Amino acid sequence: MKIRVRADLVYRFDPPTDAIYKIQVAHWPGQTVIEERLVTNPPQDFHEDEDADFGARTLRARLSGEVAVTYEALVDNGTLMGLPPGATQHDWNDLPAEVLTYLWPSRYCPSDQFGRFAERQFGDTAGGERVLAILGWITENIDYEAGVSDSETTASRTFIDRAGVCRDFTHMGITLCRASGIPARAVSAFAHQLNPPDFHAIFEVWLSNGWWLVDPTGLAPIEGLVRIACGRDAADIAFLSTQGTCELVRQSITAVAGDADSLKAA
Amino acid sequence: MKIRVRADLVYRFDPPTDAIYKIQVAHWPGQTVIEERLVTNPPQDFHEDEDADFGARTLRARLSGEVAVTYEALVDNGTLMGLPPGATQHDWNDLPAEVLTYLWPSRYCPSDQFGRFAERQFGDTAGGERVLAILGWITENIDYEAGVSDSETTASRTFIDRAGVCRDFTHMGITLCRASGIPARAVSAFAHQLNPPDFHAIFEVWLSNGWWLVDPTGLAPIEGLVRIACGRDAADIAFLSTQGTCELVRQSITAVAGDADSLKAA
Amino acid sequence: MKIRVRADLVYRFDPPTDAIYKIQVAHWPGQTVIEERLVTNPPQDFHEDEDADFGARTLRARLSGEVAVTYEALVDNGTLMGLPPGATQHDWNDLPAEVLTYLWPSRYCPSDQFGRFAERQFGDTAGGERVLAILGWITENIDYEAGVSDSETTASRTFIDRAGVCRDFTHMGITLCRASGIPARAVSAFAHQLNPPDFHAIFEVWLSNGWWLVDPTGLAPIEGLVRIACGRDAADIAFLSTQGTCELVRQSITAVAGDADSLKAA
Amino acid sequence: MKIRVRADLVYRFDPPTDAIYKIQVAHWPGQTVIEERLVTNPPQDFHEDEDADFGARTLRARLSGEVAVTYEALVDNGTLMGLPPGATQHDWNDLPAEVLTYLWPSRYCPSDQFGRFAERQFGDTAGGERVLAILGWITENIDYEAGVSDSETTASRTFIDRAGVCRDFTHMGITLCRASGIPARAVSAFAHQLNPPDFHAIFEVWLSNGWWLVDPTGLAPIEGLVRIACGRDAADIAFLSTQGTCELVRQSITAVAGDADSLKAA
Repeated sequence: MKIRVRADLVYRFDPPTDAIYKIQVAHWPGQTVIEERLVTNPPQDFHEDEDADFGARTLRARLSGEVAVTYEALVDNGTLMGLPPGATQHDWNDLPAEVLTYLWPSRYCPSDQFGRFAERQFGDTAGGERVLAILGWITENIDYEAGVSDSETTASRTFIDRAGVCRDFTHMGITLCRASGIPARAVSAFAHQLNPPDFHAIFEVWLSNGWWLVDPTGLAPIEGLVRIACGRDAADIAFLSTQGTCELVRQSITAVAGDADSLKAA
Repeated sequence: MKIRVRADLVYRFDPPTDAIYKIQVAHWPGQTVIEERLVTNPPQDFHEDEDADFGARTLRARLSGEVAVTYEALVDNGTLMGLPPGATQHDWNDLPAEVLTYLWPSRYCPSDQFGRFAERQFGDTAGGERVLAILGWITENIDYEAGVSDSETTASRTFIDRAGVCRDFTHMGITLCRASGIPARAVSAFAHQLNPPDFHAIFEVWLSNGWWLVDPTGLAPIEGLVRIACGRDAADIAFLSTQGTCELVRQSITAVAGDADSLKAA
Repeated sequence: MKIRVRADLVYRFDPPTDAIYKIQVAHWPGQTVIEERLVTNPPQDFHEDEDADFGARTLRARLSGEVAVTYEALVDNGTLMGLPPGATQHDWNDLPAEVLTYLWPSRYCPSDQFGRFAERQFGDTAGGERVLAILGWITENIDYEAGVSDSETTASRTFIDRAGVCRDFTHMGITLCRASGIPARAVSAFAHQLNPPDFHAIFEVWLSNGWWLVDPTGLAPIEGLVRIACGRDAADIAFLSTQGTCELVRQSITAVAGDADSLKAA
Repeated sequence: MKIRVRADLVYRFDPPTDAIYKIQVAHWPGQTVIEERLVTNPPQDFHEDEDADFGARTLRARLSGEVAVTYEALVDNGTLMGLPPGATQHDWNDLPAEVLTYLWPSRYCPSDQFGRFAERQFGDTAGGERVLAILGWITENIDYEAGVSDSETTASRTFIDRAGVCRDFTHMGITLCRASGIPARAVSAFAHQLNPPDFHAIFEVWLSNGWWLVDPTGLAPIEGLVRIACGRDAADIAFLSTQGTCELVRQSITAVAGDADSLKAA
């Protein structure tokens, strides 16, 4: 599916500080960047990296004053399919070595505490069926509501609060999957039909020898998701991190299906 | 410095379960494995992996019943030097991309909560001087004492408890370094002159374009440390992880300086 | 119902320390102490207090060396009835002033965090029906299992762990009741037919203008419970608290229905 | 010292809900209410209680729509003295029974976790000297800053954050005193010369057979404090609690030394 994505980020960096952006479409197999454009005003000399595993790209620079970053891309995200119930769960020995790390607990996903709950609640399922049971449980038990959580909220707290935003839903899902022995990692994404439009936090699970994207909020169709970056949890996939403080001036993110128009400048 | 290391691990796996060992000397630049031997009784067909970044090696197999794993090696760990106070701290833009991940908080190291304390306590220092100030603070404020912490203890709790074991000291140190903008990661090690002998948990910091090992417990001399594995915190460097349960039968770990004797079988 | 209760507590206090025992049958209206006996060996000069609200009695003394305390009583605990579903919940204005305190969160019962869960899960019930729904939820969702919790475990953690002992069940129940606007407090008790015999932790709720005892573990019949002390949570009702350390030598607690025999000395 | 205090609280209760105010000057021995006045607009039929221990008064009513409560009083708070270093600490056996409860941990004051820190940091002091050492430590280590803490912040978190407001300072102080074996409780107060004027949260400690007020923020002089209510921590002394939600319209609190003027209506 072809999708045009665009992020306009205007922030003020005063005093000057080092900043890291993770906003570009990942060079993920099956996800093709047809064309893209990055404009900064004033122009910046970004240090650009790409990780070997996910194809996630980071932009780094020391920024000063008000900086507008506009990124747009036309991307074919391939054919993303919903997770089939029959997707098989692997024993540890059958996992690629680089996947193992996504079994362990992380800052916002203390999966080590959820083994008993996972077994009690989902114990008669495995693999794709289990992940779908987890997603169903989240839909039934967690309310999508802003203002309940903040940047420090862990899945343990969301489990008690029973409410949160996409980031919290994702942490809850990752935590229950890892507690079930299923590798799971956080993914930042552009999302077609997300309302209101914004960066989206989702996650993916390793089943049947591959990563499968799932959206625990159910807010956006799977086939309209475009991968940006991945990591253990929200600590790894922030679209903007700064060493010092920064101030939001304005920001907009869009993702629209279709390929008719060429990219336009900001 | 040449060091003979040896680990004898006898565990019972009943029912059978997948297990991961991280007990072999890492293929770290400057650390040379002169000879090594791995014996399992009964023999096992281990799946062996090595990560590209640290040279950490993992052994995986599905194990059943009582399994004895003996690993010994003669290693030259090169010339490990204590961290110089003048080691320089890098801005984010000057860090290798793969080092950035060690700036973020993790399961046992919620460095995002310690920014103010780090600034209040160590604000007039940076780089090597700052890490040394952190180590000095730990020595003065945390008691080495078993039984206070457990496998879930985070640095936040150790900060309150004021006591713990090597794992807790390491989490405390990593947390304060990351809160200071210094990349830090947990390292498992063989340690010459550690008393009682055991696997050791230490950490390393990225300064002056390289990783420097430090031992926040001060229990073992730096020059006698042999790297095994690294990760964000204890969640990543366990010497033995199992998908199900397992039972300790007996275990001994040794690290002795010198190269006179050839390796002997168990 | 007439019940003979007996507690034999032998502890070693070395070095000497102040100690508080809460082991005597409360002078609670409707609960009659027919006869009782307190023997200490060596003899101690206890400072005895009784609180006006609950009739709970405390024994205090500075103790040294090994001290055996034997308490026995024949008590008629009246006619304790199971909580009727129709018991009515009061608005704040209709509560006695001294009951209000049991609406607020305490050390092990952070009820302020459970408002949404309580409303989601039990929102269509109130009063006795709601408390019974809470007890039913606990029975279905929490496993009685020693070794999961410790003396610091809060209801927030038990909610995640899904296991604990009587103290944890009680904290879970109190928390959900307070989160539902129902005053609830922890009660220590002798319990007929508790297996294995021990002090029991239960709680009571204020409905229909009175306190109703409930046992969230379901381990002992309501009619065989004998109140000892009450408080906000386990922090208030410990059967033995000491300013310094003390060491358990041996301990036994019994509660047996019937009145045939006169009390026997230890 | 004679002090005029006044609180104007205008809140909107929609839908109607039960509310509890704790805003009146306590009938505390040595604190004399010379004259006082309570006006509500529209008039309300408050249910008024006074607790026997502290003389704290509560006003309860079911409120609807916008309600303005004006309370003013001329009070002689006696001669409040700063805590003398020589004030003596009592063993448990020498404490009044009703004071014991202020030794135990509470929702926001987990003093059970701070024993080692208290001993390490203040171990060479006791009694008044120890409390003064604790207050000195707080002054040196905690920044008065709004926005760091919220209504759920515990002393454990403030200990890490190193910042907070009067409520957090009070929780930190209570926690360290209880961890030192000194009974301590939270007190709400009017405070002369508090800037900006507001209700103040302070605490008092039991030493030399009496309660001594201390202000861990140092923001207001001891001699200008007027007790309102007391409790284990902030959970007990809120100036306004409501069963449902309510909305602040406007609020002002003042406390001015002197007795020249008679009380004026709002």
